[in-house]
Parts: sequence; C-alpha cells; structure tokens
Amino acid sequence: MIVDIINKKRRGESLTHEELDKIFLGYLNDEVFDYQMSAFLMAVCLNGMNDDEIFYVTDLFINSGKVLDLSDIEGVKVDKHSTGGIGDKTTLIISPIVAALNVPVVKFSGRGLGITGGTIDKLSSIPGFNCNLSYDEIIKQAKEIGIVNCAVSDDLVPLDKKVYALRDVTGTSESIPLIAISIMSKKIAGGADKILLDVKYGDGALVKKKEEALELANLMANIGEKYKKEVRYVISDMNAPLGYAIGNRLEVMEALLLLRDNKANPNLKKLCVELASNMVSMAWNIPVDVASLQVEEVIESGKAYRKFLDLVKYQKGDIEKLKVEAKQKDIISTKSGIIKEIKALEFGKYSIELGSGRMDKDSDINPNVGIYLHCKVGDNIKQGDVLCNIFYDKKFPEFDIDKFFVIK
Amino acid sequence: MIVDIINKKRRGESLTHEELDKIFLGYLNDEVFDYQMSAFLMAVCLNGMNDDEIFYVTDLFINSGKVLDLSDIEGVKVDKHSTGGIGDKTTLIISPIVAALNVPVVKFSGRGLGITGGTIDKLSSIPGFNCNLSYDEIIKQAKEIGIVNCAVSDDLVPLDKKVYALRDVTGTSESIPLIAISIMSKKIAGGADKILLDVKYGDGALVKKKEEALELANLMANIGEKYKKEVRYVISDMNAPLGYAIGNRLEVMEALLLLRDNKANPNLKKLCVELASNMVSMAWNIPVDVASLQVEEVIESGKAYRKFLDLVKYQKGDIEKLKVEAKQKDIISTKSGIIKEIKALEFGKYSIELGSGRMDKDSDINPNVGIYLHCKVGDNIKQGDVLCNIFYDKKFPEFDIDKFFVIK
Repeated sequence: MIVDIINKKRRGESLTHEELDKIFLGYLNDEVFDYQMSAFLMAVCLNGMNDDEIFYVTDLFINSGKVLDLSDIEGVKVDKHSTGGIGDKTTLIISPIVAALNVPVVKFSGRGLGITGGTIDKLSSIPGFNCNLSYDEIIKQAKEIGIVNCAVSDDLVPLDKKVYALRDVTGTSESIPLIAISIMSKKIAGGADKILLDVKYGDGALVKKKEEALELANLMANIGEKYKKEVRYVISDMNAPLGYAIGNRLEVMEALLLLRDNKANPNLKKLCVELASNMVSMAWNIPVDVASLQVEEVIESGKAYRKFLDLVKYQKGDIEKLKVEAKQKDIISTKSGIIKEIKALEFGKYSIELGSGRMDKDSDINPNVGIYLHCKVGDNIKQGDVLCNIFYDKKFPEFDIDKFFVIK
Repeated sequence: MIVDIINKKRRGESLTHEELDKIFLGYLNDEVFDYQMSAFLMAVCLNGMNDDEIFYVTDLFINSGKVLDLSDIEGVKVDKHSTGGIGDKTTLIISPIVAALNVPVVKFSGRGLGITGGTIDKLSSIPGFNCNLSYDEIIKQAKEIGIVNCAVSDDLVPLDKKVYALRDVTGTSESIPLIAISIMSKKIAGGADKILLDVKYGDGALVKKKEEALELANLMANIGEKYKKEVRYVISDMNAPLGYAIGNRLEVMEALLLLRDNKANPNLKKLCVELASNMVSMAWNIPVDVASLQVEEVIESGKAYRKFLDLVKYQKGDIEKLKVEAKQKDIISTKSGIIKEIKALEFGKYSIELGSGRMDKDSDINPNVGIYLHCKVGDNIKQGDVLCNIFYDKKFPEFDIDKFFVIK
C-alpha cells in the first residue's frame, strides 16, 4: 500500500526499487494521488534519500519519456544548466558565444516559476519568437546554424513535469536530492554529451548556503558519472540579482547590450565568460584560460552578437520589434552610503507582483514589466541618486526601499 | 502565501496564530488544497509543534463546529477515549458498568479506519442499532436511561474530520501533536466535564513505544488543563489484540459474555475494571480502589448487563437477532510451546483482508467476519490445539501461522 511506503520514508527508512516504482510510476499513471505524493515529497525533503534511491529515481524519471539522440549533430554537445535565480539571463548570452566558436548548442530551457525567472519566458518576450520545436526541427536547425534554444517538449521526462509542478505549490522545492534528480534527468534525457552546471546559493536561490550548493553540485556530478557524462560545475552567488535587469524584455535587452556593445554589469559579464569558457573547454578539451580568450574574442568581434541574431531570426523572432511598453517610475535614494546588499529574494517577489513572474504555473506574465537597477553591491551612492527604475503595468506596487537595499 | 507557511514548518520554525488560521481555516474552507495540507502535515510529523501551536490549533478545531452543552444532564459527565487498537471493545463494556452506577454516560464514538476498529462499527453490527442521534435525542436519552452511545455528528469538529481523513491516506497519522489535537478537540467539543484516556502503545497502536504513549498522554492532559477539564490516563499494551475477539459482531458477543456471565479474557477484564473504576472515581471523587469494588459488584449482579440491554433497546437494536453468519475455519498449531507473542498489527491487517476493517473511509465492512482467539500470550499450547477460528466470507485469506503467533 502507498501509505506504507510514505510511512517508511517518514520513519527515515530507505525504500526498495519496487517501492520507488510503486510511488513514482503510480503517480505518473494517476494511481497515486497528489496529496499522497506531496506528503511523500515532504518526507523526502526532511529525511533525504540515499544514493541508491537517488540513482534509481533518476532512472525512473529519464525513462518516463523520450530520450533524445543528438548524435546526428557533429561535435561534442555541451549543455549548461543554471539552478535559477533573479535576473539570470546567462543562457541568452553564453549560447550564442559558444555557438559562435562552432561548439553546437542545443539548449532546452524552462519557463519561470515563483521568484525564479525562466529562459523560455525571456525568449518568448521577443515578438514572434517560437520556442516550441519538434525533434526534427531541432536537428535541422542545429545542423544549419549550430544553435537551438527551445522549450522542453512534453514527452521529455514527463514525470519531472508532474512532480515539479506539485513541489512548487507544496513547499517541497528545497530538497537537494529532488533538485538533483529533476535537473539531471532532464539533462540526460536531452541527449547532451557533457554538462556544465551553474549552481547558485543565496536568498534568491533554491539553496541558501554555499555548502548546500556544493553538496548539490557534487550529487549531480555523481549522477552524471553513473551515465558516463562529464559534469563540471560553477558555484555562484544569488544573494543579489544577477546583472541590472529583472523582467523578460529588459533582460533580453541587457543580454543584447553585452553581446553587441560588450557593455555589462561586471558580475554578469564575469559569470558569462566563466560559463562559456567552461563549455568550450569541455567541448574541445582545452584549458579554461585558453577558452576564455576565444570567448572574449567572439564578444568583441560581434560574432556572438550575430549568432544571437541568427538564432532569433531562425526561430521567427523579430528583434526590431523588441521594446518595453510600460509605465516607469524612478526609485530615488533617500540617503548616501555604500550599497551593502541588494536583496534578490525581495526583488523576485516584487517581480511577481509586477507581473513578470508567475505565482503559479498557470499565471499569465507581462513581458514588459520589470526592474532595472542603476547600482550594484559595493557602489557608493548619494542621496537623490536613482537606485532603480520600475517598469509597471496598471498599478504601481508599493516599494519600500529599505526592504530591497541595505545602504550604509 | 500557503507555500511560505509550509516552507516555514519544513524548516522547523514555529508558526504564528495568523499563519495557523490561514492553513487550517483555509483548508476547512477549501482554499488550501489537499496536497498542500498533506505536505504541511508531514512537516508537522517530522518537525513537531510547540505548545502554543498545539493549544491554538486545538482551539481552531473545537471552534470549527458546534460545542455541546451537557449541563442539562445531572451529574459529572466523564468521557473516556481509547487511542485505538485491535480487538478493543472496552467502550461496549465500561459504558454500561459506569451507567449502572448512576454516572451519566454520553459517549461519542467513531468508525474504524485501517487496522483500528471503531465502536460505532461494533454497535452498528447489532441488527437495528441506531448510532445517529440528534442533540435533543441525546439529552432525552441520557436523562431517561443514563447512557447514550452514538456517532460523532457531522457538525462536531468538522475540521478534525477533514484532516483525519487526509492523515489516514497520507502516512501522517503517527504524530503525537496531531493525535493529541484530534482527540482532545473532540472530547472538549463533546461537552464532557472530565476525560479519561486509554493511551495504547505497541505494534497495533498509533504510537509504538511506551515513552511515546506517555508523552502523548501528558500532552493531552496539558490540553485538558487549558480547558479546565480534569484528565486522567491509563497507559495500556497493544502489542497483542485485546481480548479474544476481533471483528464487529464477535466483539459485541465477547462484551456480552463479560457483562452477562462475568467470563472474559483476563487482560480485557482487568483493563475494563481499571478504566471503569477510574471513571467512577473521577465522577464521585472517590479513590479508585473503592470504585473498583462497586464496578465488580455491578458486573456480578448483572446490573451492568441490564444497562447494556437498555442501551441497545433504546437505540432500536435487537440483541436477539445478533448472530455471526460466516464460514469458519480452525487454525491448528503445528507445534507445542509457550505463546510468546500474538501480533496485533498482523491481525489488524488480516481483519481488513477478511472485510471486518476498512481499507479506506468509503470501504464497506462485513459485521460477521473476524477472528476468535483460543489463546493468550503466556499460554502453554500443544501441537494440534486450535489457536483461533477464522470467520470468513467468500474466500479464505491465506493464514501463515508464523506471521501471527510466536510459539517457543
């Protein structure tokens, strides 16, 4: 009985493969109810899973749907995954960089949920951009222009889709084993040869502490090893938003500014170069330092920018039509001092209020709204300086400066 | 947001009254989903609740429905509650004993669920017996014959009904705070002046260890104190079934045999005398030892038996028509030795297979089926002796002696 399995996990005992089949495949087949799965997931959050359970459930997840075969595309396919955060537009930037260096990029992305933005929402904010591609279209596009960025299709890891949606509304998102299984099953089913992970920690991330990020990264690397996939990871800070822009069109614009003019928030630029260099390093088996020179070159030369335009055009987007249509309000600092903190979590929640993030999976979002920061942590600001612009739709949501910024 | 409240409990933080309102009243009003409540309940199972949370939630439970006023009935009303187990028919026996001593008994009972039997199922197995009484009918009956035993009406603690049904199917039953809140809210809303608790431990009980039973009992006594209700408790063993009979009609017959002929399994008799004596002691403020002499007297004189017949007749039951209609099979011992264990949990599960217990809240049960033991722990038995009779309906469920009895 399902209750016996939930009780076992509640008592902190480990489960057999047969029991894991019963609960997870039963859930996929609608034989286990949402309210049973959510109780089980909470028990997993609090009592964990051992490696055998984690590896077995990852396998169940992968085999719940289609496993893509990218072997028709020449070259080593390196996928990159970020555990998500506020203002994280790195995928938009590094995919064309890497592709401009002739490393094939077939990148599957997700929609945003809760405080976490999603690359698919950002790309979809470009008028006309089509994120839903068939398997054949993906292969054709990758062969022709070397870069694809599309939504995860419904037949890829359907078990993760169902479990993820439930975790989001039941307070069971912050579990290292569940996060690792969710991410790695999608990456492996996506068919990449090697995987680069951007594992974030901080108040705007899924895990709060650096040690937890490291634990998660190591666990994901272990899962990768089981499937003979090389995995590398970068641990990055998500206590402050990444870059200046939060909100879908604003973030695309920030990405464009970096690619076209090589102008960017230094933290954003640094992380993008680190990630792109690692991807190239993995694809070509060259040192990261060497790869980073090439990464800088394709940014400066505009090759990465042109690759991004190729991508947008091929997927039917019209970059000329990209503009932000919203009311605007400046937030003015009432004091002088050093910016000690810019609180990612608060900005994440605020972006949901603005309408650029989703409260639940069925919420509509507005691509125009968002926040554009005029400062970063460490900046010296004066009373009267603009801290950020708020791009809002109908009603301006209350903004209490002290909740968002620590200035001392 | 509800997710924030669930997350707080997952992190082991305590909740404010406002947050407890949001989740529990929201659940009562169908604004919180089953899958959110079950995740929350699992977090409570694993992270507990502090006293303030427990007292506040008990209050929410009580005030979710009607609170009965029994003050029209003369005398001190002492309610008794058992945390449940296998073969527990004590309510059937002690209610008429206590009532025969002119202590008014207004006893609300529940239906069985899972391995645990319920007094309402036992009473309902008497042909014609009506367990559903209105408030006015209860008061009238109590005044006229001094004893009422009926089902908890739907308007009494509706929040407990909803939460209890969910806990049962989500592996969240075994939580000391949740058990305490569920029991005490019903007892207090039921209007009793004093409460006697039979808190069981062992493999057939909700809590496995004696220390847990003591913890649960103390917590319930503390809740009672908050409401200025005297609470006493008896801690009793539920590793073996209580008495010889398991199954609804068989248990009524075993109760009748004790009341009519003063013949009983000694463990059952001992517990019934202890519980009844405590109830009389609480009602009259006399020592338990003195009360127990009076308890023995009303059993021997047949007064308690006649009170039981009064109860059955008043609630439209026909005791003459009570008989067990089932196929029968003897289980014969294949070895000689001392009965070391009779496994309550296994018998509880087997009784569900037979159809005398409910798999889920909507299952039908068969009043005729069950088990009648011919031995108790400590008995010396010989190869070829009958260990028990199985009363079954269509198909005889497999019975592996070694799973049920330890004989050495």
